[in-house]
Amino acid sequence: MKGISLLGATGSIGTQTLDVIRSNPERFKLQAIAVGKNLDLTRKIIREFQPAIVSVQNKEDKERLKAEFPKNIKFTYGEEGLIEVATCEDTEVLVNAILGSVGLLPTLQAIEAGKTIAIANKETLVTAGHIVMTKAKEHNVTILPVDSEHSAIFQCLNGENEKEIERLIITASGGSFRDKSRDELVNVTVEDALNHPNWSMGAKITIDSATMMNKGLEVIEAHWLFNQPYEKIECLLHRESTIHSMVEFTDGSVIAQLGTPDMRIPIQYALTYPERLPSNSERLDLAKIGSLHFEKMDFERFRCLHFAYEAGKNGGTLPVVLNAANEVAVQAFLTGKISFLEIEDWIEKALTSHQVIANPDLQTILHVDKETRDIVSRYK
Amino acid sequence: MKGISLLGATGSIGTQTLDVIRSNPERFKLQAIAVGKNLDLTRKIIREFQPAIVSVQNKEDKERLKAEFPKNIKFTYGEEGLIEVATCEDTEVLVNAILGSVGLLPTLQAIEAGKTIAIANKETLVTAGHIVMTKAKEHNVTILPVDSEHSAIFQCLNGENEKEIERLIITASGGSFRDKSRDELVNVTVEDALNHPNWSMGAKITIDSATMMNKGLEVIEAHWLFNQPYEKIECLLHRESTIHSMVEFTDGSVIAQLGTPDMRIPIQYALTYPERLPSNSERLDLAKIGSLHFEKMDFERFRCLHFAYEAGKNGGTLPVVLNAANEVAVQAFLTGKISFLEIEDWIEKALTSHQVIANPDLQTILHVDKETRDIVSRYK
Repeated sequence: MKGISLLGATGSIGTQTLDVIRSNPERFKLQAIAVGKNLDLTRKIIREFQPAIVSVQNKEDKERLKAEFPKNIKFTYGEEGLIEVATCEDTEVLVNAILGSVGLLPTLQAIEAGKTIAIANKETLVTAGHIVMTKAKEHNVTILPVDSEHSAIFQCLNGENEKEIERLIITASGGSFRDKSRDELVNVTVEDALNHPNWSMGAKITIDSATMMNKGLEVIEAHWLFNQPYEKIECLLHRESTIHSMVEFTDGSVIAQLGTPDMRIPIQYALTYPERLPSNSERLDLAKIGSLHFEKMDFERFRCLHFAYEAGKNGGTLPVVLNAANEVAVQAFLTGKISFLEIEDWIEKALTSHQVIANPDLQTILHVDKETRDIVSRYK
Repeated sequence: MKGISLLGATGSIGTQTLDVIRSNPERFKLQAIAVGKNLDLTRKIIREFQPAIVSVQNKEDKERLKAEFPKNIKFTYGEEGLIEVATCEDTEVLVNAILGSVGLLPTLQAIEAGKTIAIANKETLVTAGHIVMTKAKEHNVTILPVDSEHSAIFQCLNGENEKEIERLIITASGGSFRDKSRDELVNVTVEDALNHPNWSMGAKITIDSATMMNKGLEVIEAHWLFNQPYEKIECLLHRESTIHSMVEFTDGSVIAQLGTPDMRIPIQYALTYPERLPSNSERLDLAKIGSLHFEKMDFERFRCLHFAYEAGKNGGTLPVVLNAANEVAVQAFLTGKISFLEIEDWIEKALTSHQVIANPDLQTILHVDKETRDIVSRYK
């Protein structure tokens, strides 16, 4: 029985992780969860899975839930709560599916506690990849990707030698606006942007998919997860998202991982690795799909992807700025404060005005993260 | 330095194997070759690679070559010659790229001598898979596929557990006549049939590709190589031949191997396994290819594929009959004796009139092989 801690249990990846746990009750036990403010769903999860520890966002909600449930469930909250969930004694795997840079500290604490990390929180590797991967190596901890693209690459590398990698090829659906020119993007609405062609995901990641920032963050994650220079990481527009990503080796051979757009497959793989468990997910039917399409990535059309490569290559605190500026800008777009294309402008402005600090420690990362959010929030 | 014995050195796979050896002189040494009747090419190969043993088809050619070359090269011929090449003392890997059922005996002898087998000779596994795989296990010998499809599956299984395989998906280009209906096949010529859309191969295999018998033989080979029941082996029409084959696992995840249509990649992989060596083969450019297409396989359109599944499932000597009847029928088509569709008729006739012998030993296999050839040669 594998004990699981789940940060972000009520989110998109979180609920799908619960699906996987629900389907394999003989294999997994949900030990601890951290949630935001969705108390209704949290109550249902507690009743169904009976986790030992439940962390919510604020003290008020913690007190409310504590009054409702038996004493054997421990309720906690805030940053301390996240860490308590991440390092829960009976947990073997931490699934970090929380959104934003709050995912960083609990990941590091879980690594120190020797937990296997199934990482769906992009910010952890994007902002602190150098710290996370070094610490994981020190504590002999495995970092397992949950993202379909990174899970694909991870699977393609099964039994292969890292030194024989020639290129990682990350596929991108192109998001909601892939068929629009830049001119046509001027007046797009939030509703248009949230209408992703292939995947059903949260709002933030769906916008990131439309701006291609999602792919940019994935490139930076791939750099850390697979120890590859940016020159060896390519993005390929592949509208069907059927090939989740690929690895080209030095002999010219390419290994790809394919599947239906069902996140439960990579989530389950992260939980069962190195085994594969039977799943009742819909099977891939290539004859039914009929054809798969591929196009070269256009960095001028998708400026955020260009920003991400530049931030990654320059390194230091620049990816922190990229990520924080993006979060604030996407929020500003979602609340109607700015237009779609202004997301890029805000990010570019934040990047160009930042003085890069090389090899930042955790305190510096958290400081630059907060500082960037403050600065970008004041943009008009 | 890895010593290589090469059966079928002047053929299509043979010359491409020589390309690989030529490109990696620090890694490979051609120890021994067996050839047919192409003496001009054989002379060139001897001069370039200086193998210790050279086997030709008949005694006359042996004497002729022996007179031309220095005494330190040993010349031999016939079945005995094939075995001598296959079991050459300084050889580590036998590349069996000879055509037809003559490839069987030398493979078995090489296994007994503890050689790694890189198998491109379809007949070995098709007619005697049960003997070959059992013997390989006994002698702890690895059987490495050279065919692009089987190499693909072999690569997809790297680091994976055989028990977690749900399906092998073998792709098929559809051959020269994939866009023709059965009615349109009535009057096709040998020249039409030899015009394969994707791969440049020998005449026999190109016709087998047009009849889809090639895929059928591959299904039987896959059954033996990967220890999977026929129910778990599927064929998928994929005209670009870019995905060389795939494996679906029990969790719903699909791993595929892709590449340009360059046989030197799987050949090299068989020679370097488990390593991959840098190669200057053209790289796969999916954006340039643009799209990949997939269609369900039509067993009524491609009757030979149906025959192969039936022969495989029934087992015993039926695959021997399938293979021998096909060789004779293809030869009859190539020499203008019968029409394209009559290839199928001859094979069907041979299969239905054969009394299956279960679990045949080597003598029985060779006997049924010869008997079938005699019978089918008398067809009109």
